[in-house]
Amino acid sequence: MARFIKKQKYEIGLAPDELLFRGIKKSEEVTIRVIDFDAQKLEENALKEVAEIQRYQDKKTVTWLNIDGLHNPVLMGEIAKVFELDDLVLANVMNTTARPTVFEHDNCILISIKMLQLKEDTGLIAVENLSLILTKSVLISFQETKGDVFEPIRERIRKKKKRIRNGWTDYLAFALLDIVIDNYIYIIGVLGEKIEVLEEHIGQNQPNTSVIKKINAYKRELNFIRRNIRPAKEMILALSKMESEFIYESTYVHYKELLDNINQANDSSDSYREILTDQLNLYHTTISSKLNDIMKFLTIFSVIFIPLTFIAGIYGTNFEVLPELHFEYSYFIMLGVMLALAIAMLIYFRKRKWF
Amino acid sequence: MARFIKKQKYEIGLAPDELLFRGIKKSEEVTIRVIDFDAQKLEENALKEVAEIQRYQDKKTVTWLNIDGLHNPVLMGEIAKVFELDDLVLANVMNTTARPTVFEHDNCILISIKMLQLKEDTGLIAVENLSLILTKSVLISFQETKGDVFEPIRERIRKKKKRIRNGWTDYLAFALLDIVIDNYIYIIGVLGEKIEVLEEHIGQNQPNTSVIKKINAYKRELNFIRRNIRPAKEMILALSKMESEFIYESTYVHYKELLDNINQANDSSDSYREILTDQLNLYHTTISSKLNDIMKFLTIFSVIFIPLTFIAGIYGTNFEVLPELHFEYSYFIMLGVMLALAIAMLIYFRKRKWF
Amino acid sequence: MARFIKKQKYEIGLAPDELLFRGIKKSEEVTIRVIDFDAQKLEENALKEVAEIQRYQDKKTVTWLNIDGLHNPVLMGEIAKVFELDDLVLANVMNTTARPTVFEHDNCILISIKMLQLKEDTGLIAVENLSLILTKSVLISFQETKGDVFEPIRERIRKKKKRIRNGWTDYLAFALLDIVIDNYIYIIGVLGEKIEVLEEHIGQNQPNTSVIKKINAYKRELNFIRRNIRPAKEMILALSKMESEFIYESTYVHYKELLDNINQANDSSDSYREILTDQLNLYHTTISSKLNDIMKFLTIFSVIFIPLTFIAGIYGTNFEVLPELHFEYSYFIMLGVMLALAIAMLIYFRKRKWF
Amino acid sequence: MARFIKKQKYEIGLAPDELLFRGIKKSEEVTIRVIDFDAQKLEENALKEVAEIQRYQDKKTVTWLNIDGLHNPVLMGEIAKVFELDDLVLANVMNTTARPTVFEHDNCILISIKMLQLKEDTGLIAVENLSLILTKSVLISFQETKGDVFEPIRERIRKKKKRIRNGWTDYLAFALLDIVIDNYIYIIGVLGEKIEVLEEHIGQNQPNTSVIKKINAYKRELNFIRRNIRPAKEMILALSKMESEFIYESTYVHYKELLDNINQANDSSDSYREILTDQLNLYHTTISSKLNDIMKFLTIFSVIFIPLTFIAGIYGTNFEVLPELHFEYSYFIMLGVMLALAIAMLIYFRKRKWF
Amino acid sequence: MARFIKKQKYEIGLAPDELLFRGIKKSEEVTIRVIDFDAQKLEENALKEVAEIQRYQDKKTVTWLNIDGLHNPVLMGEIAKVFELDDLVLANVMNTTARPTVFEHDNCILISIKMLQLKEDTGLIAVENLSLILTKSVLISFQETKGDVFEPIRERIRKKKKRIRNGWTDYLAFALLDIVIDNYIYIIGVLGEKIEVLEEHIGQNQPNTSVIKKINAYKRELNFIRRNIRPAKEMILALSKMESEFIYESTYVHYKELLDNINQANDSSDSYREILTDQLNLYHTTISSKLNDIMKFLTIFSVIFIPLTFIAGIYGTNFEVLPELHFEYSYFIMLGVMLALAIAMLIYFRKRKWF
Repeated sequence: MARFIKKQKYEIGLAPDELLFRGIKKSEEVTIRVIDFDAQKLEENALKEVAEIQRYQDKKTVTWLNIDGLHNPVLMGEIAKVFELDDLVLANVMNTTARPTVFEHDNCILISIKMLQLKEDTGLIAVENLSLILTKSVLISFQETKGDVFEPIRERIRKKKKRIRNGWTDYLAFALLDIVIDNYIYIIGVLGEKIEVLEEHIGQNQPNTSVIKKINAYKRELNFIRRNIRPAKEMILALSKMESEFIYESTYVHYKELLDNINQANDSSDSYREILTDQLNLYHTTISSKLNDIMKFLTIFSVIFIPLTFIAGIYGTNFEVLPELHFEYSYFIMLGVMLALAIAMLIYFRKRKWF
Repeated sequence: MARFIKKQKYEIGLAPDELLFRGIKKSEEVTIRVIDFDAQKLEENALKEVAEIQRYQDKKTVTWLNIDGLHNPVLMGEIAKVFELDDLVLANVMNTTARPTVFEHDNCILISIKMLQLKEDTGLIAVENLSLILTKSVLISFQETKGDVFEPIRERIRKKKKRIRNGWTDYLAFALLDIVIDNYIYIIGVLGEKIEVLEEHIGQNQPNTSVIKKINAYKRELNFIRRNIRPAKEMILALSKMESEFIYESTYVHYKELLDNINQANDSSDSYREILTDQLNLYHTTISSKLNDIMKFLTIFSVIFIPLTFIAGIYGTNFEVLPELHFEYSYFIMLGVMLALAIAMLIYFRKRKWF
Repeated sequence: MARFIKKQKYEIGLAPDELLFRGIKKSEEVTIRVIDFDAQKLEENALKEVAEIQRYQDKKTVTWLNIDGLHNPVLMGEIAKVFELDDLVLANVMNTTARPTVFEHDNCILISIKMLQLKEDTGLIAVENLSLILTKSVLISFQETKGDVFEPIRERIRKKKKRIRNGWTDYLAFALLDIVIDNYIYIIGVLGEKIEVLEEHIGQNQPNTSVIKKINAYKRELNFIRRNIRPAKEMILALSKMESEFIYESTYVHYKELLDNINQANDSSDSYREILTDQLNLYHTTISSKLNDIMKFLTIFSVIFIPLTFIAGIYGTNFEVLPELHFEYSYFIMLGVMLALAIAMLIYFRKRKWF
Repeated sequence: MARFIKKQKYEIGLAPDELLFRGIKKSEEVTIRVIDFDAQKLEENALKEVAEIQRYQDKKTVTWLNIDGLHNPVLMGEIAKVFELDDLVLANVMNTTARPTVFEHDNCILISIKMLQLKEDTGLIAVENLSLILTKSVLISFQETKGDVFEPIRERIRKKKKRIRNGWTDYLAFALLDIVIDNYIYIIGVLGEKIEVLEEHIGQNQPNTSVIKKINAYKRELNFIRRNIRPAKEMILALSKMESEFIYESTYVHYKELLDNINQANDSSDSYREILTDQLNLYHTTISSKLNDIMKFLTIFSVIFIPLTFIAGIYGTNFEVLPELHFEYSYFIMLGVMLALAIAMLIYFRKRKWF
Repeated sequence: MARFIKKQKYEIGLAPDELLFRGIKKSEEVTIRVIDFDAQKLEENALKEVAEIQRYQDKKTVTWLNIDGLHNPVLMGEIAKVFELDDLVLANVMNTTARPTVFEHDNCILISIKMLQLKEDTGLIAVENLSLILTKSVLISFQETKGDVFEPIRERIRKKKKRIRNGWTDYLAFALLDIVIDNYIYIIGVLGEKIEVLEEHIGQNQPNTSVIKKINAYKRELNFIRRNIRPAKEMILALSKMESEFIYESTYVHYKELLDNINQANDSSDSYREILTDQLNLYHTTISSKLNDIMKFLTIFSVIFIPLTFIAGIYGTNFEVLPELHFEYSYFIMLGVMLALAIAMLIYFRKRKWF
């Protein structure tokens, strides 16, 4: 999951407007869904032919073209032709490994962001590139795989929610990005809960390598999320400051909200990172304390018995002349001395607060 | 206490102006208190019907509407209607999980901040979201729970304090935020005192897991406070730089003071954090020293007795021919040699400054 | 010394212009000293009555009012009245716990900074709040305690130093702040010398808990100084960039110098902090090395004698049939084998460079 | 590989426009390749005489002069003369040790950047300085060694790729820089894969010094890359913000892409750095755990046998009166007691979860 | 060498224009060298009388006055009078302990920077303050000691290098600062080489306190250099952005180069710092590994022999009834059992990969 996207040797030196799919193909089929609406009308459609796109070229309504799967250069060329987009824009869309960015071209704004989704069944985080092409009346969203992540927005459109039906493509773009960022927050929250559960296990009795493995796994997962949030944050900041004919004044309040949300996501991930670092430190402290305890135990035991064993050793020698051996109570005196020694030792350790 | 606010799955994709309460409902009842005043007059009221708000719509006086409990969409809708506020504003107010922010809408400024309060009985920190809607003549404050935290301000109003009675809603907003930030400072101070008390215990005789647990608990508490202060600081900074028709020139000196205060809170929390880190390091050093001492003790003891026991072992062998056994003073010579060896060892360790 | 200033519960919600002394009263008496001068004339005075201040209200000369002790609200009210200052200004002066700041009010600039002084007899650092109110012709300086820290400036005035006698209140303020910052540098220097002396002790033979205690004490002291310098630095920066009618163009070169000086103080404190961290690390390394040495010593000793003692143990058994016991040279052979074993061990350890 | 470039004593105080080669000569021969093209025509050439450059001086087409090897002051002087460049520009080109920078001179822009290339056979990273001189119609690229790194661009020109054939020198410069940055990303990716492979080995059974050596080697390599990326990033940022007559409006979209790419390279290197730090920590934790295990093992063993051996020692003494020796079942009782003791110990350790 | 400059008690409160030498007097004699030149003429001179300076006051040529030793207030006063400089400027020059800074006064720019020089014989770094006073036609450079560090510039002037002979005082100032910064880079390079040599020793067999001492010494040296570079960098940045009548447009390209160079110096010092930190960590890891090895060794040895010795101990007891003692092959069986036990242990340890 946490693999980094890498450049292949053959990709070096490619023209920036080469319509070449870069990344890992995640979907075979390409599906095109269209929602075309204004405050009154609403039309939903699933296109079979690329050519059908043409219909939506010059409408006064808001047209949302959702394209799943973007490895087809022919389709991309077609779209570029219909909406008179620069090849560069679509080359960027096809490069799923690029950094989240926003750029205003002559006749559109191109927005790209990494979309994270938690697969509830496996617990893995799927990452995919979402690109938005924003013109006055058309919003084209490109996803790598077919998914229903934007279904709530379609619902809001269908339910005639005022704001979205009265809004333009810039508001629609906000709605899409909002879902992406909500997913960031949601994923961090789910991971955060696991981290908080872990917290309770640490510091308890035994240092445990499974704990350390969990901490490291969570850390890696968190780093993965952070790697995606950080450039997204920059992008959203740029978007919220962008002065463009494609963005209405009234939409900035929403973009500002996006910024607040992604900042919150970032803050949370920072906090969880600190918590993980604290947990690691606590774990280390626990190990150190444990080692200390073990050494104390060994030392107390050894230090008590070493002299006793030595004494026994002396009276185990076979010297011809060893007067003590012949006294009647020697043995008992020896036992007594040993006992006294042991008790003295224990008192000494107790005084030094060793146990 | 230190739990993070999380996004629920079903919240993803909600319209931004959906009047849905987000967070944990902390109060059943909704109470509305009104203070309406100018330099001369003062009227205090507790509203029973939402409709009564209408009265305060177009007055020349300053009206402070304090609403405790904000999970009621109907009430919110009503307020929006009376004061002609955008649904978005009130949707933001109802989202108690949002990040502290300030934003100027068409006919109001929306301010939100996390309010921390130390529950003196339990020692726990309660967090709640405070939202302020600031128009020319009305300030609406939304709290999650009923509380008397703003009582001192009511007192100042009642006591005809000149500045507050002559001021406008922007000054009133300052007074409210000032209390919030004073509480930050107060809470950090209380925690700080505990940290300073702890300081005296560390480095003293025994490394103690209760100390490490305290350090970690304080750290968590401090991180929790910091997480709330940091975005609040950004918000106050934005507020103090905001150029708005709702804020009078003369109020900026107070907003600047707020900024100084929250910076002070932030500085203090930074300092306490450093202190805690130092304490942790000191604790580790103490553990290391301790381990060193234990190992020295064990080593001295072992190293002295190991050769003595070995000598005794030799003369415990049952060889037929073992000449030393038959000399008259062998035993005493052995004891003497042992004593000499032990003393030599002790001198050696003393020389290496082991004890 | 290093205690943080804290907010008391009852201070929360106070009006910002409440003339209430906040902090710890450090002086019972209030003394007012006046120096009134221009290039030609000079008049020094110690006022007994607050009312006498009135005389200095509208003079064309530069008037420096030095007030020691600021817990007297009546006096403060009087001053406010005479110089027509906002209550807010004097409330700020009385709040000795506030963060260093500079703010231009309608008819004055308010500057506040923490003044550190090393008590040569005890070695302790005394901290007190210095507030300056700067108007066109009057500079009022408020100190918490009576002190002679500004005596050198009085001397310069008396000795008719051109620059100070020709300067205005803004230059006088510079002179005062310069002394404050010089004291920062001086205190850091004194502490720094102790740190450098410590450096020579570390890494030498024995790890020593007194060293670690010193490092921690210095660290605390340095942190305390840094906590005061950092906001002072921000304040000086703001001052040096402030465009105000109260500051003459020609004075900015001096304010720039202040900034350079406080930056130097800050740089030094950063450097000493790094040095202390290095010392701590060095100390830890020394402990680790020591532990390593101890363990090596113990291991070499144990490993040599354990097999020897075992051999002796075997021939101490009482088996009826144990052939070796009956050979004439068995004992000597055993001793020889033991010696050979010990030597082999020593060679092995030497080869592994254990000693 | 990771050696830093250093200043030699004799270089101190040289005039900045001294045409002196600084660095390590990497190529004996100097080769000059020219590609001269516009949308229609294309001419490729390898110059033998420096004088031939003259031909390209005033053409309306785009001329790309690629010069490999730059230690020849005569050639440099010639180029300066032909294109009327300041000596300073070419002195900068010859200083291969300088920091990546971009600067607009009177009649050209000078860009310099470090080019990293992974030598596939040895796995080593070769670093060389690339300088670009950009005028309206001529782009001169200076490489230290002969290489085919820019071959893909030549191919794109030959294949009549529209964008490059229609573009100007600023676009060509972008294409060259793009390859440089693609190489950064590629190299980081290759290193990253090794780091990820390492990840799987760490935390597994035995702490291993070869692992630590690998981590440190990767760290050094990564630091080396980072050292080159950081100033390049600053340079690209300056370039993308530069307002110059030599850069067309339409090229900024590409420079912005360069910035995104180098930021991505930087992000990746940051992430890998964090991963390496985590690996180091994990390695340390593993060592600590291991030590703990070893000590536990030793302690359990010692603590069980020490008292048993002591008991045996007691009954090995030769006291005349030692009643237990004479009971018939003494020996078996002793064995029983010993077994019971051992079992008790084991239960105790199990209870403390030592194993 | 690495001592910090400190403020003496008596320096606190001095007037800023007091012509008092602050620092450590490093040279008794004061020497004044003059180079006066334009593109055609050149005149070199060593002045004996301060009064001779007068000659250079109003010339159209560029005059470079190099003054070694600056503890003479009379000379300073004279200079101030001749060139009509503010006392403040020369007071700053005499304060050799001040922070590197640049400030534009009414009729000059004052630049100060710390000059580091490696004394090749001792390996020590000498630090001295260099101040430059830059007017339209005169550059006065103040050094603390007589030195030939600027000889290369004199050579360039003598050799009629075009740029310096055609340039003004601002270019000359660049040339001087360039040498200072080249020295930074050179010194870092020399230190860097030592650090790289050290690298090869670390991680090799034995942890060695001499290594740790070297690391710490290099660290201290590097910190000392960094302390001087950091404020110099700020100064150069301010200089390169300064808009002043004393600096010609065409000189900024050189100041920009200075900035690049000092940034490179800073980058290098950052890198070496990271390397030293890595070395320290590697050293610690080596110590830990070593300790681990020692403990393993001890444990294996102890754990094998402890039970064997115990068995021997049992058969050394003197019980009357101890059946095994009387079997003919008991002794050999015991030896066999012991051997089997030892081998079993070894196999166990091998399985756990302890050796």
